[in-house]
This record gives sequence, structure tokens and C-alpha cells, in this order.
Amino acid sequence: MSPVSIPPPQCLKKRMVVPQRYMFGPGPSNVPPRILEAGANPVIGHMHPETFEIMSQIKSGIQYMFQTQNRTSFAVSGTGHTAMECAIFNTVEPGENVLVGVNGIWGERAADMAQRIGARVETIVAPPGGYLTNAEIEKALSKHRPVLFFLAHGESSTGVLHPLDGIGDLCHKYGCLFLVDCVASIGGAPVYMDQQGIDILYTGSQKVLNAPPGTAPISFSERACQKVFNRRTKPVSFFLDLSWLANYWGCDDKPQRIYHHTGPVTAFYSLRESLAVLADEGLENSWERHQKVAEYFHTGLESLGLKLFVKEKRARLPTVTTIVSPPGYDWKEITSYIMKKHNLEISGGLGPSLGLVLRVGLMGFNSSEANVDMVLEALRDALQHCHRSKV
Amino acid sequence: MSPVSIPPPQCLKKRMVVPQRYMFGPGPSNVPPRILEAGANPVIGHMHPETFEIMSQIKSGIQYMFQTQNRTSFAVSGTGHTAMECAIFNTVEPGENVLVGVNGIWGERAADMAQRIGARVETIVAPPGGYLTNAEIEKALSKHRPVLFFLAHGESSTGVLHPLDGIGDLCHKYGCLFLVDCVASIGGAPVYMDQQGIDILYTGSQKVLNAPPGTAPISFSERACQKVFNRRTKPVSFFLDLSWLANYWGCDDKPQRIYHHTGPVTAFYSLRESLAVLADEGLENSWERHQKVAEYFHTGLESLGLKLFVKEKRARLPTVTTIVSPPGYDWKEITSYIMKKHNLEISGGLGPSLGLVLRVGLMGFNSSEANVDMVLEALRDALQHCHRSKV
Repeated sequence: MSPVSIPPPQCLKKRMVVPQRYMFGPGPSNVPPRILEAGANPVIGHMHPETFEIMSQIKSGIQYMFQTQNRTSFAVSGTGHTAMECAIFNTVEPGENVLVGVNGIWGERAADMAQRIGARVETIVAPPGGYLTNAEIEKALSKHRPVLFFLAHGESSTGVLHPLDGIGDLCHKYGCLFLVDCVASIGGAPVYMDQQGIDILYTGSQKVLNAPPGTAPISFSERACQKVFNRRTKPVSFFLDLSWLANYWGCDDKPQRIYHHTGPVTAFYSLRESLAVLADEGLENSWERHQKVAEYFHTGLESLGLKLFVKEKRARLPTVTTIVSPPGYDWKEITSYIMKKHNLEISGGLGPSLGLVLRVGLMGFNSSEANVDMVLEALRDALQHCHRSKV
Repeated sequence: MSPVSIPPPQCLKKRMVVPQRYMFGPGPSNVPPRILEAGANPVIGHMHPETFEIMSQIKSGIQYMFQTQNRTSFAVSGTGHTAMECAIFNTVEPGENVLVGVNGIWGERAADMAQRIGARVETIVAPPGGYLTNAEIEKALSKHRPVLFFLAHGESSTGVLHPLDGIGDLCHKYGCLFLVDCVASIGGAPVYMDQQGIDILYTGSQKVLNAPPGTAPISFSERACQKVFNRRTKPVSFFLDLSWLANYWGCDDKPQRIYHHTGPVTAFYSLRESLAVLADEGLENSWERHQKVAEYFHTGLESLGLKLFVKEKRARLPTVTTIVSPPGYDWKEITSYIMKKHNLEISGGLGPSLGLVLRVGLMGFNSSEANVDMVLEALRDALQHCHRSKV
């Protein structure tokens, strides 16, 4: 054994200190003690019967949260982006047409992902803060004849809650699968996967669910599975191959589960607990609470003289609010001031909304009038103390 | 808002109970309280300065653990399989030749992954429990002229610790990158990434590191980065695109970090802590302890009349021991008996070793003579009480 030439780093000798902070940006949100504690349970095997039981509870919780009876419902071992790639990698083969609705950064990223695996990608773009009409969508479907249409339901970069009704039927009329990103909306605004004809739906653990980032619920309709399981080519990723994942999660007819990957068991614990919290409150109650708190927040913002970025009320995401960046101010100074002075995260824009907005996320147990008051007070304070140029 | 048609599942009403269990299979291993508690710290932002500081400590810890000065050292937000795909997706373009050393399941999976992205894959196969000689490797390199050669250092399916010396030089002689899987070996057996000319090295958090599964340390040499950053095509995965990951982890020259994905911050906390534990003990001490404990274990197994699957002493993995499945017994009955009676996980074979072996992992803080005694006692008991057919 030769001696090591690189010594142990000094920085690991110090104790790690993590601050408590109000997480009122677009995510991750604060994790309540019940969920954090669940994640601190001892590690057992990724193939132990107790783990399979917890995974089965997660499946039921996802079916409830998504309002679906799809048996192919499970959690990807990764973040929202992993689920996004899981959806696209499995449903699309090289050379196939994909249509992407772009109303913010998520559409841009979905288009990039589909291009990387050799799809022919067309986009329809909504103006920032706006959304696509069903007529526009139908026109594009009929023109491009895609196998998959992507849409972000909760566009956290622009604060838009995209209408979903009728789009599933349009997709199916043109023989296309309907893929919806509900990372920022699920649990905070109504989604009915089966009724709305959504074929693939995914979200993340770190928004309304209030679990740490690292797992991503996803569900595939029978129609989607038909396409996936009749592919001519293998999906580019073994790790995200639906046939393996469905087996690991007990969603197929095989008598035995085969070792695929080592599931992040402690992340499963916290995801399970976060789904239990949502089931305890009830979906409708959670939707209603987010809506009420959002309206209370929006009124408060307007009384501070601030403007909402999304004009149309029904298209405002109740979980993440976009505020027109106050004229004359540097948005970075505002978010830094609020972080420093109030120990509270709010954020600037992202992708197409960069420089245009401030974003405030009140998700899951963070969504309360008391927290709204805290954010409004912080904003009032920032507008008073940050530099203002004459405009 | 229409009413929901799928009610909240009853199974989420029960309290989740996770048992304590001796995790002496090939992983995940037990997580000590210090590391579990680190992971229960509050969630902060994936782009907050405190998170960047923790990520920077993780980088230093990985450089130490891997014995490398590579600045492109970081943790993938996923499990070992994710890191494996990260390595292959970034270094290989469609149509390029890849050579895979197969001495167990990991080579088989690496070959599958490379094929999925359109590489031309050749394999050289070692008999189960054996390894490849440098002469065999050179012959294959010279014949196939691959851009990448894959080898598993710690083959957890067969219990082989593959010799590494000299192979890096051979690869470079033929203009090929050397990719090594050290998921099951790192921290438990010597690896010197820079000295041994390894170009890409990755591991998982859930073995010797004793952190929960969900993060995977990886490092790329300058030579590997040269190839990756001069690709003609984009890697198939946005989530695993090295140029994005290197930026998120502060490994590039760009002045600013751009939002890529939401890092699993609590998993970063536990990974950081596990690296601190390793640095506290010191690599050489950890290697020595694993080696001593393994030899003590192997002697004990032989005195029970059991046979080791790997004949050559120096090729035995000190972290995961493969025992020839006791003749006349059903291996499944043995592992089930030990789980039920002793609350202790040991496992059967995997891939090419399925049905041939029992596997016992004593990794990180699980590697102690006291735990060896516990496993030996459980095995002795099982051999006495399980059914034996006349052979």
C-alpha cells in the first residue's frame, strides 16, 4: 500500500452548520419536522418487504394526488428534471415529432431534452405571462402531427397556471400523447389526470409536498404504456427505462422484482410522509387554501403598489406568484436585502422572466396568511430601503 | 372545482414504522447516527451560499477519497447507476467504440448503457470470480481501439477486487479513456486516481461511506474533460450534461453558476458528513481496517467449512465477501433464515453469480470484528437449522 499524496481536507474538520430560513422562493420549500424526521429513519434494503410496502403506499398517494387509476404510478429516484427525462426518454424514439408548448423555461428545457435524443421538435410559444389557447394547440397538432405534446401546468418561471381542459382530447384526436409538468402546481391547484386525459404527469417532492428534493412522482396512462412497451429501440437510459422502473415498483405482471438500482430509501420515507400529510388535509382543502392565500397575497401586493405579472386572474399560479420587478429598483438588491434582513428567500426571474419579475412561492404548509403578512412586510421594508433610481 | 373521484388512501393513515436491521449485504450499509442526523438538517436553497460551501467541502472530500487533484470532481444527484450513465453519456458519442471489461454484473450494465446511446461495444469477459490480465486488456485495446475502457474495481456481484496498476497507462497508449467503477471498493481498498491514470471514477454514497443512497461521487480527469468538451454532439441527457453539472458545482471558469437542477440538499448534507467521517479516520487506516476485518472474516468462514468464491487472496474485495453457496442448501433459505432469526441482511448472488454465492458486505463503520462474529454465528446457526439435501 503506497502512502496517500493528497491529505484530508481541513474544511471537513469543522462542524457543518445549516441555518433555518424561510423558504418562500419557487422551491425547495420548507420541510416540516414530521417529514424531516421520517427521512431520518434507519436505512433498510431497497428490496426489503418493508420498503416495498412503503413504495406501495407512495404509489397510492401519487394516484390520489394525481387523481388517476394508472397502475404505472411511482417515484423516480431523482429530481423533477429526472422525471422530465424519464417521460421523454421513454415515450419518444429518434426521428419522431414532438410538439412543445413553451410558456416559460420548462418548455424550453423539454424541447432541449427531446432534441438531444434525436426527436424533431416544434414549439408553440406563448408570450411571457400568457398561455396557449386550445385553438392554437389544435392548429399546431394538426400541422406537426407529433407523438407527444408537452405542456407545463404550473410554469414557475412566469407564474402562469396553464388551463388544461380539453387539451387531452385534442391530443388524442391527433394520435398524440399528452405530457404535463405539474412540478409547481400539484397539490396547490386542481389536476385530474384521468378526467383531463393526461398521459404522462410528473412532479417533484420539494414544492407543495414539502419533502426534501430528490424524488419525483410520475404516472403513465395505459395509452402511454402501449407506446412505450412497443418501441422499436431501447430508451437511451437504462436508469430511466420504464420497463425496469415499472418492475421495481411492482407495476407490471412479472412475479418477481429484479434488482434495477438502489432506491434512495430515506428519500422514499420522506416522500411517503409528505403524501400522508396531503391525504390528511385532503386535496380539495389544500387547493382551496392555496387559492385563498394567493388571493390574499395578491391583494396585499397591489395595496403596496406592486403589479402582478400575470394579468388574467384565472391564469395565476396559486403556489408561485410573479410580481413585476418594481420599476427603478434593482431586483437583485431587493432579494438580497430581504434575505439578509428578514432571513427569507424570494427570488428573481428565470429563463424568459429573468430581470422582469420577483417570484414568491408559498407552497404546502408555507401557504398561510401569516406567511403572506411576513412577505408583504419584507417587501414594504425593501422598497423603503433599497436604492431607487429616478424613472 | 369539481370534486375528486379518487379518495385518500387508507394506507397513508397508519404511522410509518421502519425497523432497525443489520445491513450486512452488499449495500446499502447501515447509516450511523452522526450521518443520519446531518441529513435531518433544515432544507435551504440549492443555490444558497451555505449550500455552495457544503458542495465545495464535498468536492474536497471526494478529491481526498479518490486521491485526485481533478477540479471536475463532484456528486451526481442520483445513485451509482446515475453516475455510471453520467460517465458514459458524456465521454462517448454515437458510433464510437467502447471496450467493456466484464467480470460481473457491472460490466454487463455498462455495456448495455453504452449500446443504448449508439456506441459500438466490445467486451472482454473474465470468468466469474476471476479478473482480466493486463496482457488481455492490451490485446483488446489494440484490436478494438476504443475511446473508452470500462472496468469495475470492486465487483460486488462476484467479490473480486480487480487489479488496477498499469491499466491507465495501457489505455493512454492506445488513446483511450480509463473509466473505473469503485462503488463497492472506495474507502475500503486503495485507489489512487491520479497515480493510476484513471480518467473517470465514480462511486455511491451507500457503501463504505455509510450515507443513505441518493448521491454518487464522480471525477473527470483533464484528459476526459478535453474529450467531453470537444464533442460534436450533445450528450443525450440534459440532467447529466457535464458542462451544466461542472458549472453547478463550480468546477468551471464561468463567473456565475446557472440554475441547472434542484440539488438534493439534505442528501448533500449526509454525503458531506460521511466524507468528514472518512477524513477523520484517514484513508490508510480505513483501508487497513477493512483488510484486517476481511481476513479475520475469511479465516472464520473457512473454519466453518465454507469456501470463498474468489480463490486468489489478493483479488478478494475486502468490503464484500462472496462465499460459495453451501452445497446441499438452498441459498434463499439461508438468507431468509438469517434475516428472520438474526435480523441481519446477507444476500445471494447477482447477475453472473446468481445461485452460486452468498454475499456479505461489511462496509465503513460496519467493518468490525464484532460484526464478523455476529455474521459467523448467524451462518453457523443457519447451516445447522436450514434444510440440507444429501449431495
